[in-house]
Amino acid sequence: MVNVAILGFGTVGSGVAEVLTGHENSIARKADGLIRLKYILDVRDFPDSPFAGKFVKDFAVIENDPEVDIVVETIGGAKAALDFTRRALEAGKSVVTSNKELVASHGYELTQLAREKGVCYLFEASVGGGIPIIRPLSQCLAANEILEIYGILNGTTNYILTRMIRTGLTFDAALQEAQDNGYAERDPSADVEGHDACRKICILAAIAFGRHIYPEQVPTQGITGVTLADVDYAESAGKKIKLLGRAIRREDGRVCAYVAPHLVDQSNPLAGVEDVFNGISVRGDAIGDVMFYGRGAGKLPTASAVVADVIDVARNMGSRKALSWEPGGEDTACGTDDLASRWYVRAKASVDGLRAALPDCKLLARRESGGEESACITAQELTRAELEEKLAGLEQHSLIRVLD
Amino acid sequence: MVNVAILGFGTVGSGVAEVLTGHENSIARKADGLIRLKYILDVRDFPDSPFAGKFVKDFAVIENDPEVDIVVETIGGAKAALDFTRRALEAGKSVVTSNKELVASHGYELTQLAREKGVCYLFEASVGGGIPIIRPLSQCLAANEILEIYGILNGTTNYILTRMIRTGLTFDAALQEAQDNGYAERDPSADVEGHDACRKICILAAIAFGRHIYPEQVPTQGITGVTLADVDYAESAGKKIKLLGRAIRREDGRVCAYVAPHLVDQSNPLAGVEDVFNGISVRGDAIGDVMFYGRGAGKLPTASAVVADVIDVARNMGSRKALSWEPGGEDTACGTDDLASRWYVRAKASVDGLRAALPDCKLLARRESGGEESACITAQELTRAELEEKLAGLEQHSLIRVLD
Repeated sequence: MVNVAILGFGTVGSGVAEVLTGHENSIARKADGLIRLKYILDVRDFPDSPFAGKFVKDFAVIENDPEVDIVVETIGGAKAALDFTRRALEAGKSVVTSNKELVASHGYELTQLAREKGVCYLFEASVGGGIPIIRPLSQCLAANEILEIYGILNGTTNYILTRMIRTGLTFDAALQEAQDNGYAERDPSADVEGHDACRKICILAAIAFGRHIYPEQVPTQGITGVTLADVDYAESAGKKIKLLGRAIRREDGRVCAYVAPHLVDQSNPLAGVEDVFNGISVRGDAIGDVMFYGRGAGKLPTASAVVADVIDVARNMGSRKALSWEPGGEDTACGTDDLASRWYVRAKASVDGLRAALPDCKLLARRESGGEESACITAQELTRAELEEKLAGLEQHSLIRVLD
Repeated sequence: MVNVAILGFGTVGSGVAEVLTGHENSIARKADGLIRLKYILDVRDFPDSPFAGKFVKDFAVIENDPEVDIVVETIGGAKAALDFTRRALEAGKSVVTSNKELVASHGYELTQLAREKGVCYLFEASVGGGIPIIRPLSQCLAANEILEIYGILNGTTNYILTRMIRTGLTFDAALQEAQDNGYAERDPSADVEGHDACRKICILAAIAFGRHIYPEQVPTQGITGVTLADVDYAESAGKKIKLLGRAIRREDGRVCAYVAPHLVDQSNPLAGVEDVFNGISVRGDAIGDVMFYGRGAGKLPTASAVVADVIDVARNMGSRKALSWEPGGEDTACGTDDLASRWYVRAKASVDGLRAALPDCKLLARRESGGEESACITAQELTRAELEEKLAGLEQHSLIRVLD
């Protein structure tokens, strides 16, 4: 029998308790033995919970109980969660988490600590909710050199963009609707400013490229600047605006990782990823492009990914080798300064003015376009600096990369 | 160091040799040790191959060499491949394969044998080419009860259907084009009659539902009966015709598995899976729907999936537990007799005649539709027998299930 303690009885933590106990028999079959939920740590009281007898308030109870094999950390953040994770690993317990902030900031340290202690630190649920991505990337694609990984990593912003595209809601109205539906927090900045996607691309990049990339090394732009005009112009070109996290391996070994809105062509499978769904594309030298698609968040999808990690640890108790990667550093990541791409440009300029700046660009038209502004897609791939030099003198509203 | 022998130097086998040797260093890092290609078994001579020194013609050399830890079986078929696989496992060697025919027919026996001998029998490459699906299904989704799994499992037929839909080629012309491009064999029956998809859905069903389903238990219909008229009518309803392998868990515990063309709505991500790509959807009780997408065949994609399994075995030498499932039986699978769905119907009948048989059906129109035939989609879900009863007296050209 394997004993589990859950830290934090919030949305994901309570989902883990539900899945672990609700599927007890089939999980026992898959784990080659019973998995028992022994403790739940939370500062709050839950007298009416079916798990009432399992609650503890002091982490030391879990830390010092040699029967506890696996600690599920669903506290979130990088304070108590970091302290408890370190202590659990030090105590020889495996840790499973959905905490993307912690993995993105401290994943290197924690995987190393797990390796030293001969236990596991697993975090399938930290990216893409229940979508299998960490294990496929680290194991199934292990025979590939990964060239690039990019995707729609945040369901909240994808919901907002989908509503803007489908129903013509403004950003503010779509955000309000997302909040009303429980898809966005009251303080939506972690989502709409791209920080959530940034943490996830850091984790994916570490697995794909073997070096830690820190969130502060990743230029991050959210969707607050995307307007209905941009959505309309993009549509007229057969493209959709999507917030992408992206990490590209450069020939010099550095990783170019960033988060920004992109114009994605309708023929790309990611263009069809709508609402709160996530889609993650991986390009390997042997496999070509593969895509993973599903619900990127939510109580049960995320909990099911956490429990899959718990089953994996239980099944391979004492033998499974930890994921790990090299430490990061200043030479690991590069910004987007050198990254050339085609660009969508919307400027306060006449069609002639825009064409004067970008002679061979493809002009775009939208239903309500007036004489005050115009938009185009550049013919050539340009860095941002090269583009801005060409646009010097024009008042720009919007510069968005085109994904080719 | 781990030593590998490849059986069969055809497309996949030679791809495995290429990937193993071409990525030697990065593979060694991931496998925690060097992986050496020691032997290649083939009846033919390859004097000019860079691997010329490694060829042997007698399997006993491999079987009796205690240094060989992993045998890669890329012979195909279920004769020599079965004999060699059994002998390799008996000799305590792990076996990795891309052979869907062997796994679909003998997977239960071979995984049991592997388990007894404490070695692995892995077959990630047997379904979906390089797309990670076996491991995500068995590990990442382990906390889910899988309710249904369905997908575009055969790239050849998907290429043919895509060409019919996009360019209006007839089935015969599209098949010819697929053959000219090397996407279809000279004898295309295993693909176009659905047998290849049948083997793959058997393997997926075994993993998802834990019981072996044999190919002969799976009603299998290919795409030879699909006409341009059907493609056009489907398009007029916003749907695409796709050949799906499908396995549904019924409440009585049996699995309803079959292969047949379906009308798939444009809003389903599978509708966007075109050309030789594959897409596999899995529905779990916690995760909801997830989809895996990528190249379902080809030398390097398939080889990369084989090598990922080799790395997995090497990394967990002596500790990894084998995949396994229960034996099949007559009570395991059920046909499609009880399976109700909406149907696309094309009949030699006037619109009025069709409406008389199916009063509330949705009539379809196509550009060139004449008075001789008409088509519709039923409003209700019907079994095939119920549908045929309603259509008694009408001469039918085509009955295709609608995926809802």
